[in-house]
Amino acid sequence: MQLVVMKFGGTSVGTTDRVMVVARRLIEAKERGDRVVAVVSAMGDVTDDLLALASGISDAPPEREMDMLLATGEQVTIALLAMAIHSLGHRAMSFTGAQAGIVSDASHTKARIQAVRADRVLEAVEGGAIAIVAGFQGLTPEGEITTLGRGGSDTTAVAVAAGLGADVCEIYTDVDGVYTADPRMVPAAVKLDIVSYEEMLEMAAAGARVLQLRAVEFARNHGVVLHVRSSFNDSPGTIVREADETMEHAIISGVTHDTSEAKVTIRDVPDRPGVAAAVFGRLADSNVNVDMIIQNVSEAGSTDISFTTPKEDLVRATRAVEEVVAELGARDWQVDETVAKVSLVGAGMKTHPGVAATMFRALADAGVNLSMISTSSIRISCVIEAAQVETAVRALHTTFGLDSDAVTAEISPAAGGNLN
Amino acid sequence: MQLVVMKFGGTSVGTTDRVMVVARRLIEAKERGDRVVAVVSAMGDVTDDLLALASGISDAPPEREMDMLLATGEQVTIALLAMAIHSLGHRAMSFTGAQAGIVSDASHTKARIQAVRADRVLEAVEGGAIAIVAGFQGLTPEGEITTLGRGGSDTTAVAVAAGLGADVCEIYTDVDGVYTADPRMVPAAVKLDIVSYEEMLEMAAAGARVLQLRAVEFARNHGVVLHVRSSFNDSPGTIVREADETMEHAIISGVTHDTSEAKVTIRDVPDRPGVAAAVFGRLADSNVNVDMIIQNVSEAGSTDISFTTPKEDLVRATRAVEEVVAELGARDWQVDETVAKVSLVGAGMKTHPGVAATMFRALADAGVNLSMISTSSIRISCVIEAAQVETAVRALHTTFGLDSDAVTAEISPAAGGNLN
Repeated sequence: MQLVVMKFGGTSVGTTDRVMVVARRLIEAKERGDRVVAVVSAMGDVTDDLLALASGISDAPPEREMDMLLATGEQVTIALLAMAIHSLGHRAMSFTGAQAGIVSDASHTKARIQAVRADRVLEAVEGGAIAIVAGFQGLTPEGEITTLGRGGSDTTAVAVAAGLGADVCEIYTDVDGVYTADPRMVPAAVKLDIVSYEEMLEMAAAGARVLQLRAVEFARNHGVVLHVRSSFNDSPGTIVREADETMEHAIISGVTHDTSEAKVTIRDVPDRPGVAAAVFGRLADSNVNVDMIIQNVSEAGSTDISFTTPKEDLVRATRAVEEVVAELGARDWQVDETVAKVSLVGAGMKTHPGVAATMFRALADAGVNLSMISTSSIRISCVIEAAQVETAVRALHTTFGLDSDAVTAEISPAAGGNLN
Repeated sequence: MQLVVMKFGGTSVGTTDRVMVVARRLIEAKERGDRVVAVVSAMGDVTDDLLALASGISDAPPEREMDMLLATGEQVTIALLAMAIHSLGHRAMSFTGAQAGIVSDASHTKARIQAVRADRVLEAVEGGAIAIVAGFQGLTPEGEITTLGRGGSDTTAVAVAAGLGADVCEIYTDVDGVYTADPRMVPAAVKLDIVSYEEMLEMAAAGARVLQLRAVEFARNHGVVLHVRSSFNDSPGTIVREADETMEHAIISGVTHDTSEAKVTIRDVPDRPGVAAAVFGRLADSNVNVDMIIQNVSEAGSTDISFTTPKEDLVRATRAVEEVVAELGARDWQVDETVAKVSLVGAGMKTHPGVAATMFRALADAGVNLSMISTSSIRISCVIEAAQVETAVRALHTTFGLDSDAVTAEISPAAGGNLN
């Protein structure tokens, strides 16, 4: 008798009809003999409606009160889903984050889960009910309601699965699983049956949007097996778990791309110790996320520093850079918003030293110019012009033998995945 | 430095603009030097919207899940009100029923408050913030979310006031206070400056809708002084408190009426011990509320039993009566839905034995026929034909000297109260 955590996002529970569909899916799992815990998000537009209410009152509402407000969204869904299951003749019990024992820190609107004390959830499923947990929310040890920020419901699902020692955490989504590339861009992209946490983390960091980085991190840290699958069909999706000797190590698991970042370059910075620390210390203080960093020392005792940052952080980033440029006596700085990042991810890369060279050759042959390069042990990322991203991704997908054997050029976007 | 609990209902917080008005009112109280705790209901139609969502899923949703759903309504209001106060430059902190320490029993959808452990609320106000508590909701000792049913937010306000030892619990409403009769029916009705708990209880039981019976009971049991006043102006309203020697005892405080009940008569019931117990035992088992009961023994060894019950209980009542009539071998039974109850309420009645006679004479002079009479030590109620209720109320209001000296016949309904 398996214990399964099944997570459904806001689109999957967007209307009362869809809530009924999810209810039936949970009941099917129960009737197969599993013990079932559901984790759900707020219905479709509910969060946006609540945000609109708040902005009708205040431009800068206190974060504690935003959490108080937003947490009602999932609470509505869990109640309706429990009602739906009852109306179909089965038992269900809903739990707020607080009731499910999701203990978080006090960083309102982006709290982190510290512990899961899911005794009540376990009691409910052992008593034969389907347990339904509100995603995205927690309670501090002091009894304050928090929300977990972006990717919060995925993280709740993984945390509950870890807390209960569940056999698997199923993440239901609008795609079939994790693909070797975004099928909307690469019709020959193939669904992966299995990827390691390590690869999934690199893919998420490199632009794959199917799973949030923090949920994958949490899963890896607690050994929770993830199953990313479609909420529209019963086909198996992609398993994400610890790499072991039974897992086939493809050299390259996938090609990801990301056009959400901008590149900032500070020119002619004096080349002396502490300069990089000054720049990136200031950016950190301004709460700017920095992805790739490149520093080239020039011959004349000065240097250029480039970095990429999410476009949503760009206003804060340019404000910080402006100050730093003045303090350091750098020449000037510039922002390029028309960049893209393409990445190769694969655990087999560790033992195949020629991958980087093959990648750069493939991009050169396709006429793609590289402006930044960054690597980890299982990932190589290049910053290129945004206009060339499709050319680059397709060239890499073909070069590394990822194209499916039987590809129709007309795969519809609806059937495709969203690795990116 | 007073500690004041201020309660605002759903109409008072029906839009974000009205939420701002309430925020300003709370800030004014704070700036006068009071420590301020607000108790609020769900915004206007929110509860109805949630009920509609639920009925889209199930005809008979589990009550536990209804409470889970409905409790979100007040949680939205408290968050928005706290945001509004912050946006006006003052500190505020919102609390769900659970966070405010409202401990209830487990009777979902009609839970009763068992205790208030308002340490966090007290800490907030002592720290200089305006505390905002969600009305209508509680938490069981086992951690289950409950709602308190009809009049729940008033009861929350009184319970919080009791728990904090507040100086006064102000109930803001769409009327100026408690009137000697419904001003829409009796233009000469006068606002009462003060009434005792005892009188207020009898008035509420006899049809006055300005305060819920259970909230008044709770206030009396815990000695909480109530102040019923308008949310649209700053005029003093009506104080409800323990009667003492400084309180002037009017013989009659008010005339109330109630057209929400129906009269049921069971005819020719065998006159033997245990018959009334059988009838009303069965009604109680069917969860039917019974108000007045009359039994007349006839000469022939059988008797008629009449009782009044809220029209909303009538389906259950007739089902129970049907069974009982068959079991007891009564002749038949009938229902009269065109009845009204008029009541005189006044603490001075205790020491003025002629009140009943005067009342019956006044009604007779007005051509009003009585079909049932019931009395308490400070109330006399008569059941009459519904068509005669206005005639009866006006006649009594005049006879007992309650008409104001300077009455314009054209008092607008908006300016009037709603004693009934």
